[in-house]
Parts: sequence; structure tokens; C-alpha cells
Amino acid sequence: MSEPFDAVDLIRAKRDRRALSGEEIDWLVDAYTRGAVADEQMSALAMAILLNGMQRKEIARWTGAMIASGERMEFSSLAQPTADKHSTGGVGDKITLPLAPLVAACGVAVPQLSGRGLGHTGGTLDKLESIPGWQAALSNADMLAQLDEVGAVICAAGDGLAPADKKLYALRDVTGTVEAIPLIASSIMSKKIAEGTGALVLDVKVGSGAFMKDVAQARELAETMVALGTDAGVRTSALLTDMSTPLGLTAGNAMEVRESVEVLAGGGPADVVELTVALAQEMLDAAGVEADPAQALRDGRAMDVWRRMIAAQGGDPDAELPVARETQTITAERDGVLTRLDALQVGVAAWRLGAGRARKEDPVQAGAGVQLHAKPGDPIRAGQTLLTLHTDTPERFARAQEALVGSYDIAEAAGESTPLVLDRIGSAQGGS
Amino acid sequence: MSEPFDAVDLIRAKRDRRALSGEEIDWLVDAYTRGAVADEQMSALAMAILLNGMQRKEIARWTGAMIASGERMEFSSLAQPTADKHSTGGVGDKITLPLAPLVAACGVAVPQLSGRGLGHTGGTLDKLESIPGWQAALSNADMLAQLDEVGAVICAAGDGLAPADKKLYALRDVTGTVEAIPLIASSIMSKKIAEGTGALVLDVKVGSGAFMKDVAQARELAETMVALGTDAGVRTSALLTDMSTPLGLTAGNAMEVRESVEVLAGGGPADVVELTVALAQEMLDAAGVEADPAQALRDGRAMDVWRRMIAAQGGDPDAELPVARETQTITAERDGVLTRLDALQVGVAAWRLGAGRARKEDPVQAGAGVQLHAKPGDPIRAGQTLLTLHTDTPERFARAQEALVGSYDIAEAAGESTPLVLDRIGSAQGGS
Repeated sequence: MSEPFDAVDLIRAKRDRRALSGEEIDWLVDAYTRGAVADEQMSALAMAILLNGMQRKEIARWTGAMIASGERMEFSSLAQPTADKHSTGGVGDKITLPLAPLVAACGVAVPQLSGRGLGHTGGTLDKLESIPGWQAALSNADMLAQLDEVGAVICAAGDGLAPADKKLYALRDVTGTVEAIPLIASSIMSKKIAEGTGALVLDVKVGSGAFMKDVAQARELAETMVALGTDAGVRTSALLTDMSTPLGLTAGNAMEVRESVEVLAGGGPADVVELTVALAQEMLDAAGVEADPAQALRDGRAMDVWRRMIAAQGGDPDAELPVARETQTITAERDGVLTRLDALQVGVAAWRLGAGRARKEDPVQAGAGVQLHAKPGDPIRAGQTLLTLHTDTPERFARAQEALVGSYDIAEAAGESTPLVLDRIGSAQGGS
Repeated sequence: MSEPFDAVDLIRAKRDRRALSGEEIDWLVDAYTRGAVADEQMSALAMAILLNGMQRKEIARWTGAMIASGERMEFSSLAQPTADKHSTGGVGDKITLPLAPLVAACGVAVPQLSGRGLGHTGGTLDKLESIPGWQAALSNADMLAQLDEVGAVICAAGDGLAPADKKLYALRDVTGTVEAIPLIASSIMSKKIAEGTGALVLDVKVGSGAFMKDVAQARELAETMVALGTDAGVRTSALLTDMSTPLGLTAGNAMEVRESVEVLAGGGPADVVELTVALAQEMLDAAGVEADPAQALRDGRAMDVWRRMIAAQGGDPDAELPVARETQTITAERDGVLTRLDALQVGVAAWRLGAGRARKEDPVQAGAGVQLHAKPGDPIRAGQTLLTLHTDTPERFARAQEALVGSYDIAEAAGESTPLVLDRIGSAQGGS
């Protein structure tokens, strides 16, 4: 036996609620990456972790082992401080698009490594790829150069960061072990810490359209991640934000780019503006830079960075964005006030219309998605259009309509409204 | 999608403590056997089953699905009723060897499908293979003929019975999921029910040398298996028996055959005789046959069946059995009474001496093992030999001695003695 530990012993330990030692964790992550721990062993361990949990110390070590499985990036050559944002994923969550140029316009460089969408939540890269010419892939050198020149970059994470996480995430996806908080936290934070950002703001979504359905779970995840980031020397904070309703008025790739440009032009839906400004303020605070992000939206500085950021990656910021070939509408059957519009159902409908993918290798439709004509709290008249469904492939309408059955309520009077930002976690108040 | 269910949905259901439906279980077992459910999915499910349990109804359906994955045997053409015994495995547990011919001598046919050992408990086939010429493999037709002519057969289970179990057991072995009571119960019972025995007695071991370390767990396993057997029309009962001390005075293949022959000759260690007679009585009762097994041991009828049974499978019942080339002894350091001799430690020592195997494909040494010169309750004199270690490969002595450190206690006076049979479960009192 050349291996210092036996995988079965360590699976049994976690199964029996014993905490794993640092050496055991280092070996597990490394041996799994090398293939000395088999997929079927790691999936049994992941299920034991999901059901029995991990101590903070174990999660920190696990995160460290995932970082150590790959390369680390380094932004210390930049003149500006760096800040990044991560969202746990929601429906209509296009915030990264206006946020990165906005924060850059305020003097903080934003190295945003993003992903593609899987399931009912869209991916930031899928959205930007609806802009003609725009390229997601950048070398590390090109990324650093763009950060230096433009101040913001949104690009695909290379294969070099935390390869153990990549392998483990694919396994969790097919084994019902995605929802383990220790594994979610270490997956997100290993990539963000390896990326080398100086400050990090987490947007932890709560509600039907989010991964975390209740506030207690979301808070546990947020606290775990804030502690991991802080311990690794990254100034980290988190906002818990509502995801029971889609963000903004669109869920779909090109539609969300259009909405983001409206926000950058000083308009756009109130909730998208509110969250963009709130997250920008968190990032600026964490980076220790005083600035007024609302002002930078209004005066066009953020739009200017956006245009340069898109152009730097081959995109044409003035190009016409794709529009789906076919539409269908859903209309209100009565007068009243819209009191609920379910994020998950809208997300699934957009996905089924072609905005998202079921498998990693599937293509997405740039124009597909769901357009909202009203949000909870808005007065409604019978016959009014509530939703427009967009797709290039009309045979998808039926299953999208199916997903939307019972997705909204119209009542006599408005109920109580939920605030968008539910809580803030972390003490990262900047200073540098 | 041509499959009626999605593996991830079902893993998540069990993870979230939902009971699986009959259709879901049938599909899971079948799809796993076909390869449509992957190993890493089944291992995550097995861990969820281990930690969250299964309802009796689920276990029964799971067992049925495992039986349906292969062939069923059929003994109704025999003139005699059939009864089988299964032990959950212990150290020095050679009971099957005298038991099968004893029960056959009393008029009940015994179709005993056995396995090879893995880890610290020996395998019945490994023991019998120390008899020159003896063959473990029989065709179903040969097995039936031997049952008809001799009344007893101990042979290897073919690949045809419950192939799903075979695949699942190998997976559980490497993923820390062996100890799930629903999976242990369904694994054992699927093979025993498919084998077609009319009555079944389970010897569920409890204690350091057994799989189940405490009585509550062992009782749960026994009750689960008795219910499964009874529901499937097999008259089933179980004895909970002590496995804190090795059975008899030997743990090792040829040594255990020699001890079994002593029992068949009317002698042998008291505990082996007691358990053999108790299990024989259970099997006869379950088969509805009145007989006195203690008498059949004394008067040589059991020995007669043993000789015919061994000869029918090519073995020479009069052959000299192999003896290991090297021995070492462990002697008492003080006078007193032996109050403890740990079954697990003796089992591990015998295994390390070469009596057992670490991997399925390893060979075993026929002569290797541990010989006991005293049992708990026996008076001891300083300098007296307590254990003799036997092996063909003396470089193994050091690790065997290591396993035996602290394996026994010698006290001033005897403590309370534990009964061998701790409890009986099941109402199978035969009648036919």
C-alpha cells in the first residue's frame, strides 16, 4: 500500500459522524483528483457529508485542498484593488452584467470568472454570448491586460483553477449530492480564492427560484462562505436576497442583455437597479474605495466601461441582439393585484423555451425566454398580457405553458411585500 | 428518455427520507443490473439508505427485485422437506460443517450454498477446500442429485442467483456501505429465497467478532430477515448468538475441519456442540420434522452423512489434512482465570497468518490459523500456552502477534458468563 489512507476507512468515519483530519482531507481531494479514490467512493462520501455535515475546520481544509489541486491567479500587479461577486444563481439574475462595469467605473477592478447555465438558472456567459462577436475565452495574460486597461472582465474560468472541484461538481450533479452546504461552500470559495480577488461579495439567493429554499439554510451557506473567505485573507461579505420572484422583467439570454443595457443607461427595472447598486456598494466598501455607484450609473460612466469591456472581447456593443422567431402570451383572467409570480416556474419555462440547457453540451437559443409585463404589487386588468413566451422552436410552447400553470396569483388587494435584500452577513467594511 | 424514472430523483427522494415506491425500487435494481444506473449513483443511494433507513415494505420489494434479477431454484421434486441455515459470520464459525450432515441425518435435506471468506471471518468453502480432492462447484442438476441421494450439499452459489446482489455487494464493499441493515437483510434473503429452501434458520452473530456489535442492531437485522423470509413463504427463524469469543478452539481452515469432525464423532468443544444442536433443532422444527439431533451426533448417523457428502464432491474423508509449517505460541504471564478472549482480534490474527484473504482473488493457506488452548472461564497457570499461531509463512507472525496485543484478560476469579444463544426470533415452528 503506497497510499497513506484507505478510502473506505474515511467514508466510514464520515458516515459515523467523525470529523476528518486535515491530512485525511488533503489526501482524499488529491487522491480523488488522481483517480486513486474512485467516483463511487467519492459519491458515497459526498452523501455522508450531505447528511452528516462537516465542521467549519473540515470545510476550510477541504476548500484549501481544492485550491491546491490547481493554479492560483495573481492580480497584485494591478494599480487598482480588485473585487468580485458571486451569485448562487437565480431566475432573471443578470446583475453581473451591469455590476462589473459599474464597479470598475468607480475605481475597483472586477475579475469576474463566470459559468454557463445548467437547469432553470441562466448562465452569465450564455447571456453575453448573445452579443455578436463576443468571446468568453481569455488567456490569463489577456484577462490581466483587460483588467488593467478596462477595469472589468467577464470571462470563462479556465480549467486550471481548482480542477478537483470541476471533477467533484460533475459527480455531485449525477448523484443527488449537489445540495450539501459544505460542498457548495467549498466549491464556490475554492474557485474565488484561487482566482485571487482581494474582496468578494456573495449574493446568496433565497426562495423558490434559488438553490436554497429557506432563509436558515441560505444564512448557514452565507456564513460558511464568509468565514472561508475571511480566513483565506479575502475581504468577504454576503447579502441574502429574495428569489421568490424573477429579477427584473426578463429571463432569457439576449433579453437580459437588453435589460442590463437599460440599467447601464440609467433606466431599467427598479429591483435590478436596487440590487446592482447594493452589491456595487458592498464591493466598493470591501475594496476600501469610497464612491457613489448610483451616480456612476446615472452619469454614463458605467455604460462607458460596459462598451469598452464588450468591445475588448470582440463584441459589438451597438449590434442588434437576436430576437426569437415566435411568441405566445399569457393574459390575466381577472382584475386585481398581482401578488405572486413564481421564480422557479418562470425559470423552468424559460429553460424549456430554449434559454437554458439540460446537458452541458446542449446549445442555447439567444432569443428564447420569458418576458414579464407585471411584477408582484402591480395592478392588473382582465385580458392584460402578463407574460410573453419567446422561442425559435414553437413546439416548445406547450411544455413551457405547462410549467407556468399556477405560477401567479391575482388578488383583490396587494399583500405584504418582501424586501429584496433580506440580510447582510460579514464584517468586511473595507479599509486597505 | 426511455427510462421511466431518473436515478437522481430517486437518490434525492431517499436522501430526503421519502419512501420509494414499488415501481421505483423495481426500476432501480433492474437499471443498476443493466448499467443504466451507474455505480456512483448506486453508492450514493446506498449511503442514503444506510443513514436514512428503509421501511419494511421497501426492503421486501428491494429483496424481490434482487430475486427477480436472476434464476430461482426448485426443490419440490425431493421426497424430503428442505431447510437451510445462514450465519452472518464469525470467528471460528465452522458450524455449517457438522450441521448440514446432522440435519440431513434427521430426515431434512440441506441445500447449503456457501461463500468464501473476506476479511477476518472465514468462509465455509475455504474450510472444505482444505480436504484433498473436495470440489465446491456443482451444477444445479448435480446439486439436486446429491440432495436426493445424500441429503446434504455444501457448495458454491452459482452466478445465476440474484446477480444484482453480487454487483451491489461488490460496490458496497468499497464504498463503506456494507453495514446498512436493509441492504444486509435483502442481500442475504434474496439469495436464500431464490435458492428455494422451504425453511431457513438464521444465526445472527453479536459481539466484537461479528458484523453487528450490539444486540439491538442484531435484533433489528434478525427481525427484518425473519419478516422477509416469512412473507416470501419460507418458514424462517433466527437465533442471536454470542460472538465476543471465537467459537470452539480453532480459527483456520483445516483446523476447523478437524474440529468439525471431532463434533461429528461425538466429541469436540462444548460451545460448538451446543450451537450445532440448537441450530439443528431449529431447522428440524421449521421443516416440521421431529427428531433428536443430539442423539444423531452421538450414534454416528451424522458422521455417516458427512463422509458421503464429502465423498460425493470428490473429497477423501479419511485424508490427512494440511498442517502449517511453522508455529509460535503465546503463553500466560500469570495465574488466574481467563475472563476474555477477543473474537475480532483472534480473527484478524488468523487472517494475517494466511487463513483469510484481503482481496477476492487472493489464495488462502489451508493450515494457517489460531489454535486456542483455553476459553473464557478456564483456570490458567503462568507459563501455560494460551494460543498457538500456525502459518506456512513465518514473516506473518509479527503482524499476527500485533493483532493479539490486549486480546485477553486473566483475572483472579471468573466473571459472569454470557450464554451462547442470546435470543430467538420468529415463530416458525414448522408443521406441514
